[in-house]
Amino acid sequence: MSSFQTVRGMRDFMPEEAKMMRYIEGKARRIAELYGYKEIITPVVESYELLSAKAGEEVRLRMYAFKDLGGRMVALRPEFTPSVARLVATTLRNEPRPFRLFCVGSLYRYDEPQMGRYREFWQSNFELMGSNKPEADAEIIMLTNDFLRSVGLKNYVFKVGHVGVLRGIFAQENVEEKNVNEVMQLMDKKAYAEAVRRVKEIGVSKKCVENVQRLIELKGKDTLEIVGKMRECVGEYDKALEAVENLQEILKLIAEGESKITITVDAGFARGLEYYTGAIFEVNIPELDIALAGGGRYDRLIELFGGEPTPAVGIAHGLDRIMLAMQKQGTKMDAAEAKKVVVIPAKEELKADALKIANKLRGAGITVEVEVMGRKMGKALEDADRRKMDYAIIVGERELKDGAVVLRDMANRVQNSVKIEELVERVKG
Amino acid sequence: MSSFQTVRGMRDFMPEEAKMMRYIEGKARRIAELYGYKEIITPVVESYELLSAKAGEEVRLRMYAFKDLGGRMVALRPEFTPSVARLVATTLRNEPRPFRLFCVGSLYRYDEPQMGRYREFWQSNFELMGSNKPEADAEIIMLTNDFLRSVGLKNYVFKVGHVGVLRGIFAQENVEEKNVNEVMQLMDKKAYAEAVRRVKEIGVSKKCVENVQRLIELKGKDTLEIVGKMRECVGEYDKALEAVENLQEILKLIAEGESKITITVDAGFARGLEYYTGAIFEVNIPELDIALAGGGRYDRLIELFGGEPTPAVGIAHGLDRIMLAMQKQGTKMDAAEAKKVVVIPAKEELKADALKIANKLRGAGITVEVEVMGRKMGKALEDADRRKMDYAIIVGERELKDGAVVLRDMANRVQNSVKIEELVERVKG
Repeated sequence: MSSFQTVRGMRDFMPEEAKMMRYIEGKARRIAELYGYKEIITPVVESYELLSAKAGEEVRLRMYAFKDLGGRMVALRPEFTPSVARLVATTLRNEPRPFRLFCVGSLYRYDEPQMGRYREFWQSNFELMGSNKPEADAEIIMLTNDFLRSVGLKNYVFKVGHVGVLRGIFAQENVEEKNVNEVMQLMDKKAYAEAVRRVKEIGVSKKCVENVQRLIELKGKDTLEIVGKMRECVGEYDKALEAVENLQEILKLIAEGESKITITVDAGFARGLEYYTGAIFEVNIPELDIALAGGGRYDRLIELFGGEPTPAVGIAHGLDRIMLAMQKQGTKMDAAEAKKVVVIPAKEELKADALKIANKLRGAGITVEVEVMGRKMGKALEDADRRKMDYAIIVGERELKDGAVVLRDMANRVQNSVKIEELVERVKG
Repeated sequence: MSSFQTVRGMRDFMPEEAKMMRYIEGKARRIAELYGYKEIITPVVESYELLSAKAGEEVRLRMYAFKDLGGRMVALRPEFTPSVARLVATTLRNEPRPFRLFCVGSLYRYDEPQMGRYREFWQSNFELMGSNKPEADAEIIMLTNDFLRSVGLKNYVFKVGHVGVLRGIFAQENVEEKNVNEVMQLMDKKAYAEAVRRVKEIGVSKKCVENVQRLIELKGKDTLEIVGKMRECVGEYDKALEAVENLQEILKLIAEGESKITITVDAGFARGLEYYTGAIFEVNIPELDIALAGGGRYDRLIELFGGEPTPAVGIAHGLDRIMLAMQKQGTKMDAAEAKKVVVIPAKEELKADALKIANKLRGAGITVEVEVMGRKMGKALEDADRRKMDYAIIVGERELKDGAVVLRDMANRVQNSVKIEELVERVKG
């Protein structure tokens, strides 16, 4: 047995898994096309400076970073957003807004491997840049819903929050940015009690602490009700009220535009990345502990990368996790299985004829393997059986003289002589 | 302007290029399907030990190698074959032969960037393992031909040689492996005169030097004629004669199985990688200096990776180069351009209706963008014009009351009121 193996945290996709991954990727690409998102392909290797510029510490410390042979400090991308931001700040700088951009590929983080979490993982990424309107946020949620539905997933729930609510309250209470981020991080880890304790320590008004405490507990599927309660909590904080109204508009557009999305509004929801400025969202499924997708609005990021001020909203879909969710839910791929045919020459001298017939069938869109092991007919048919081929075509001298071959239906074990010109029709059935 | 840029040798594919790359990738995948090659996806990051095990010095010294955060020496794959060999030697070890395996993705080499050569480059890779028969070699050449034809390339030429011819002669002359490799490397660099000088120095028979000299010059499109002359040169070297006969069989199968492949037989053709043991091939096109594809037979490699002895033949297609060749030849993609529609609400309150109509059209497979910039009608239509949308759908209050919208044909500047239920039909035309 070979001692070679994959590096810890990396994985091989064997044929069944690779097929599923490419199927999911294809569905994401189809959604991009339907919504007018243009695909771009950016490199896996980017400058460390770019990738670390706005990454939170958790991501930055887990990057695959190294010097290349020219002494440049580079890293494997841990997310797509910096690369997209780089493009928007450079090549796309003068293009008219909005941009709708799509990318899909592998990303790299040195996290502890666990169920559904690899060090090389796959994402599809949708970014809508240039619009600060609620319909942009709604579009990102709706296309994610269309995507997940198109791969056949069920019972997934969108969790939606808005970082502007708490940030708005804290801003009006003159809390330092550093302290705000600390509280948000505790909430992201669901350490709510600790977050509240921290808020008390910061020294805000008693009223503020109470409101924050109430907000954190507001959560539920009746989105109108929850948003109404949020509004009560933030009544006297203008910025926070604006955020609640923005959230309400987004939810209203989704509800009226497309009613089949299950949403939980969660006022205490926070997401790790500090660059979010507005609505944030995540998709969960009962079968898994990890989110299938996550994103939100980040209106100041492009500027931070040196570009023009560009409001933006985006989402990343975890393709490995979506694949795992499909496996857990027993989701079938909707692609019809193509008929599979093997062509077997009855003797050495007929190999070229076998190749010719194989080519003819492939030209008609049929999947054809040719016997290349030089096996005797019995062995070759046994192998065709084991590999669940639909038909074997036996190229024999006698039939060939009449322009025919033997077509064997592997399932029924019935075989007939069939004219070569009728072969495509017979196989396609 | 942002100071961020791609790392030297890396590239972005902007939408038009990304579309072309995905188109080429899709064609390669379709060929894999038609020939029964199963796709596998292996990681970009592999152990340095695996990737350097059988790589020639030229590749090994240009790998992106580094220690990961766990102190493991890893590298970015410079080719697919070691990963495939690892799988064949481990996970696939006990599966019945033959394997037909396909992979596609990005690879990494720290070469000097030049026209068509990047440090991150894309390949599709086909490997047929388990068969030592000439029909396996023929299949790899034929599927490559089908692939290049399917993307619309013209005037490409296969260069075919056989490392067994010269190696066979040298073996019978008892030349050391080291010296043989040195001569082959000179030939790979087309330093033929120097190669002959080196052969003389090694101390083989005078006859041998003459034959090697004659062989190196044998080259041409009349494959039967060239192979006949090769046979004359190697008459007394058994192993070399076997190699010529193997080459002849491969060429014969191709010629009889599928006559539309242009082949140059080149007896002096050598390929860099030392692991080749039989036929070798390359595809060239008049418009480019670099090969579009290259491969050959490597019957001993899997063993060297710790697997069962497994004869194998494979090819890698350079997708960046194929893209460049398509651009040089002005090749059009065969996919029909989908109709593009933008939906514009006439006022704020109709945004949800715009989303609803957009969803309905997407459900029918139409590409739809929604106006998300909150622009006035005139501006929004101007933008639709600039971005060459086929139709604008204007959602107005008055029409909506009658269950209708305004459909504007952007090219003809004609607009009509159309019932929403007739919209799909009207847009699809």
